[in-house]
Amino acid sequence: MKIGYLGPRGTFTEEALLGLKEIKEEDLIAYPTVIDSLKAADNGEIDKAFVPVENSIEGSVNATLDTLTFKTNLNIEKEIVNDIHLNLIANAHTEFKDITKVSSLPIASAQCQHFLSENLPSVPVVAANSTAEAAKMVAEENGHSAAIANQLAADIYELKVLKSNVEDFEGNQTRFLLLGKEKSVRTGNDKTSIACFISEDRPGSLFKILQEFAGRNINLTKIQSRPTKEGLGKYYFWIDLEGHIDDKQVNEAITSLKARLNVKFFGSYPRS
Amino acid sequence: MKIGYLGPRGTFTEEALLGLKEIKEEDLIAYPTVIDSLKAADNGEIDKAFVPVENSIEGSVNATLDTLTFKTNLNIEKEIVNDIHLNLIANAHTEFKDITKVSSLPIASAQCQHFLSENLPSVPVVAANSTAEAAKMVAEENGHSAAIANQLAADIYELKVLKSNVEDFEGNQTRFLLLGKEKSVRTGNDKTSIACFISEDRPGSLFKILQEFAGRNINLTKIQSRPTKEGLGKYYFWIDLEGHIDDKQVNEAITSLKARLNVKFFGSYPRS
Repeated sequence: MKIGYLGPRGTFTEEALLGLKEIKEEDLIAYPTVIDSLKAADNGEIDKAFVPVENSIEGSVNATLDTLTFKTNLNIEKEIVNDIHLNLIANAHTEFKDITKVSSLPIASAQCQHFLSENLPSVPVVAANSTAEAAKMVAEENGHSAAIANQLAADIYELKVLKSNVEDFEGNQTRFLLLGKEKSVRTGNDKTSIACFISEDRPGSLFKILQEFAGRNINLTKIQSRPTKEGLGKYYFWIDLEGHIDDKQVNEAITSLKARLNVKFFGSYPRS
Repeated sequence: MKIGYLGPRGTFTEEALLGLKEIKEEDLIAYPTVIDSLKAADNGEIDKAFVPVENSIEGSVNATLDTLTFKTNLNIEKEIVNDIHLNLIANAHTEFKDITKVSSLPIASAQCQHFLSENLPSVPVVAANSTAEAAKMVAEENGHSAAIANQLAADIYELKVLKSNVEDFEGNQTRFLLLGKEKSVRTGNDKTSIACFISEDRPGSLFKILQEFAGRNINLTKIQSRPTKEGLGKYYFWIDLEGHIDDKQVNEAITSLKARLNVKFFGSYPRS
């Protein structure tokens, strides 16, 4: 079993994946981007891919939605929701007062803006491609840089945590998807994901999609418009709903939608 | 009149702004982020802000939507839609075969992936904070680096265009908003933007919002869910619709929505 994930070693994606009890560390393969890991699972190079899809502060991971919609035919087998905590980490010989530079993924450092301006007001904050890459760079430079990253990155790159939970927001969570070629059986507490393409540009076209669900008392847990890349104002809608495709109401709603517009089905899977 | 925009000099935002006939170059002030320029207009430091809100390939500019919704009380006075063309630019002494490095905003270089892999397969592609910053760096280094940026950046930083329109996608456009404290008068071809907050987490809550518009034959040109930052699955909806708040149907729909949920009104403005 080979599972690809968004690397390098020490990302929040790897941290979430290692939390799954059925996962063996030797099965994991780090990919440089979400797109690369999804394509590798799609073309059979690996068995499954594990990627972030949504963060409670930042919103959807567009690369995940667009790649699943346009580039691959993968099934969502499972969803995982993980708490996100950010730490200020540095080399063993670095104390708080020594820090010359802080690196991180810009989204992560933005989430610690209050902490940084209160505690490290004159220290430059530089961009890295991921929190894990920032940690890796701090270790390689072996100077007095610090990184904002997770505990896993501190462990992997042998750095120490100078201060934990430095994020400004409470309740920061990320939702991840495990994708592959298998279908998940109905558990009675499931979710289903689809993408709907609207061919007509008329009042109420999204309304008519939602009517299929509201009329059957099906709750939508997510609705996200994304450009089809065919021009401004051309969207598709990613929809997550409560229920399994084997539930009568869900099946009827999706069958009814498919009769009149282009729908891509990403699978039904146990709710986190 | 002072107008703040997303800088540095030479961004697509500046290019779009300079296309407006009422704009004088000496009125413009570059800000490092969308958030900074919007806050400056909100607190009266400048008169107006001009920011990107949506790209036909990448989708919404989340910082614009979230800042307007949560941090400022600005009115949309105008929208502008501009074509986006990317060029490979370098110093005057650099020929195609000399290029050692290509820098750009990662989103922009991703949009030229096909061109880069065909024409510069072994040249490293590095990240910059904006296409304009990449151009500025190429000029400052004065070596054989190249940047992917617009014509304006080439002009400002005295670089030459080695190859124009290197983007993989046709029809790439960005929509920009001019924001200030003024209200725009009804022209008969207008749009209106609002944000709706759903307090209840029940089937059909978005459906009921859309019902107000579909029932009055009002077309929605954009609907975007964004996290309220209060936890996964908590969203607000940014909605653009056809019509002016002084149109009877639009006024009734928004009044009806306001009676039962929290609605933020961003203004009615002439359609681009």
